[in-house]
Amino acid sequence: MGNSTAAYGSRAGIKTAVFLPHYTSEEKISAIGIHGAEIFKIKTDNYSDMKNAILNRAEKLKIRVVSGNGPIRIEGYKSTAFELFEQTGGNLPDYIAVPTSACGHIRGIFKGFRELKEASIIEKMPKMIAVQSKNINPIVAAIKNNREDIIPALNKNSIAEAITTGRPYGGREIIDKIYKYGWLAEDVSEEEIIRAQKLIAEDGFFVEAASATTAAAVKQLIEMGKIKASEKVLLMLTGSGLKDLESVKDYTYNINKVDLDNIEEWMTADE
Amino acid sequence: MGNSTAAYGSRAGIKTAVFLPHYTSEEKISAIGIHGAEIFKIKTDNYSDMKNAILNRAEKLKIRVVSGNGPIRIEGYKSTAFELFEQTGGNLPDYIAVPTSACGHIRGIFKGFRELKEASIIEKMPKMIAVQSKNINPIVAAIKNNREDIIPALNKNSIAEAITTGRPYGGREIIDKIYKYGWLAEDVSEEEIIRAQKLIAEDGFFVEAASATTAAAVKQLIEMGKIKASEKVLLMLTGSGLKDLESVKDYTYNINKVDLDNIEEWMTADE
Repeated sequence: MGNSTAAYGSRAGIKTAVFLPHYTSEEKISAIGIHGAEIFKIKTDNYSDMKNAILNRAEKLKIRVVSGNGPIRIEGYKSTAFELFEQTGGNLPDYIAVPTSACGHIRGIFKGFRELKEASIIEKMPKMIAVQSKNINPIVAAIKNNREDIIPALNKNSIAEAITTGRPYGGREIIDKIYKYGWLAEDVSEEEIIRAQKLIAEDGFFVEAASATTAAAVKQLIEMGKIKASEKVLLMLTGSGLKDLESVKDYTYNINKVDLDNIEEWMTADE
Repeated sequence: MGNSTAAYGSRAGIKTAVFLPHYTSEEKISAIGIHGAEIFKIKTDNYSDMKNAILNRAEKLKIRVVSGNGPIRIEGYKSTAFELFEQTGGNLPDYIAVPTSACGHIRGIFKGFRELKEASIIEKMPKMIAVQSKNINPIVAAIKNNREDIIPALNKNSIAEAITTGRPYGGREIIDKIYKYGWLAEDVSEEEIIRAQKLIAEDGFFVEAASATTAAAVKQLIEMGKIKASEKVLLMLTGSGLKDLESVKDYTYNINKVDLDNIEEWMTADE
């Protein structure tokens, strides 16, 4: 998000500032910086307070904040539903698992499907699965406790850095929709996220940890019997793993260091 | 390339080994490793010798090498021409600047256009621009010296790590085509590559150094009068900048470190 804002901002010639929590990966900072955006790296124990602090001052400081739940972002996200409809030829999945933080993404996808339904283009909307990390799970915690209000999750971190909003502005609306439409909500441990990231990579997609939460959550929901084997689930994989290599530093790769002179020797040995 | 091979290999369930020169970035190695490929990091002063050493032993070792000039890769690359035709509605550019190393990419794009022409879908083929770094420029050096044979460029490195084939198998064929079709060839200095990478980023695309060579070369060709201001040039930007952050470490970003408590103070100061 910071990355796209910086890229589009520089392309459009708009002066852009990006506000980042201090635990943002160096990869993301480099990628944002090279586009020419001004970077503010903010020491904060929770991402929500930081966001709110900026949002609250936006008008006074005459800055236009592009953040989680703005109406224009929702319009953008909604194209996910349209593209999915086109690319599947209308053969939509039963569920769509979405890494959920400020809630803009899940709202946007749903809005797209609702518009397709209102236009009588589809009859049945896929159900959403709101996925969070166990460390920062304000929405999932509410659902699991049969509550309607947000249970803030502050002062904690997660390897899934892109979904660390502990007190999401749009959370209450999503909780309502989960009850109303029979959506699912699930949270996953750090260990499960790491495992899922490797699993998705072995399936051909190197995604960042936040995206990998989806596979971990769906696995749990299948084991709990909430999703049937016959049902089709789509995982929203939104971020490249290259954006946060720190999170994969513990994987052990088979790196063989070889001299060109003895290349034949080890290749034969490897047979 | 190593990355894609590892990703598709793991997805297809094919046992995959990736051979890399020792100067490959950690980012690329991580991305390849997580897909589960076996990695061979080879101490070598030049990439061409390393490739040839492996190619020469492929049959004996019963490995199928997916490398620069294989016919299947060319068939894949050729889809670039088809997609470009579709996406421009047939309004093709005059030139296509291609970072050129083993020559598979430029051959593939050309093959696509030739097939479109043979099928009478287009009348005129865009001209290619073979782009290399000055440090490793076997093709450009031949053209600039009015020669037909490859002038190997060995024992040198370039920030444009993805195009470091100093003795390309497919080079002679490309040299012939450059003369035959009036294509262009240009090489660029390390400094120009770095400058171009920043320029492209400010235009919204964070690409790796090898991709940035295209913009640097086109700038020079315009200054030399070889490309006219009225002509349309397409730059092939093939690789994400996130694959090699070492190459952008010298850019200075405006990183402001701020505490949440005094967020108002600096935002006001910034006005």
